[in-house]
Amino acid sequence: MPHPDLGDVELTAVLFALSDPARLELVRLIAAEGPQTVAQCHTVDPDSPKSTFSHHLKTLREAGLISNVPHGRERQISLRRDELDARFPGLLDSVL
Amino acid sequence: MPHPDLGDVELTAVLFALSDPARLELVRLIAAEGPQTVAQCHTVDPDSPKSTFSHHLKTLREAGLISNVPHGRERQISLRRDELDARFPGLLDSVL
Repeated sequence: MPHPDLGDVELTAVLFALSDPARLELVRLIAAEGPQTVAQCHTVDPDSPKSTFSHHLKTLREAGLISNVPHGRERQISLRRDELDARFPGLLDSVL
Repeated sequence: MPHPDLGDVELTAVLFALSDPARLELVRLIAAEGPQTVAQCHTVDPDSPKSTFSHHLKTLREAGLISNVPHGRERQISLRRDELDARFPGLLDSVL
């Protein structure tokens, strides 16, 4: 699963990824609680179809906001906070 | 032309309004140069059709980012900076 170099990510792509209520809520969850499994992430929007939720994770990953890596038998979703803060200073702080 | 109360504007609507390159560029222009006429605003994306550009102004206005008011025979576009900074501290600073 590819993860972009933050240096290649445009600010507008990050803003778009954060402009959906379910995606913003998910980023806030991970920022507050630390890395989550995919199943835990889905609790922010439990009524959404799995395909919609997978698309949200993809949008966040492609915008450089999250990493999605194997962790035991699960996949773990983490916020790329340090890299984001370095690339877009103040942005996450202002939306979390 | 209606302008929302910033208290009624959702953060996600502001993030979406800023997630388009032409709209972000326009907000940066007004932040740097002060209020602009509609014709001056159009210079950030001169090749876009007038209808597209009008839609950009509408999206920014409805998200509470700009005001669009008569000024002599023109209309003047201004950034609602103080109100935005009060409602979403740090957000504009992080994207300008």
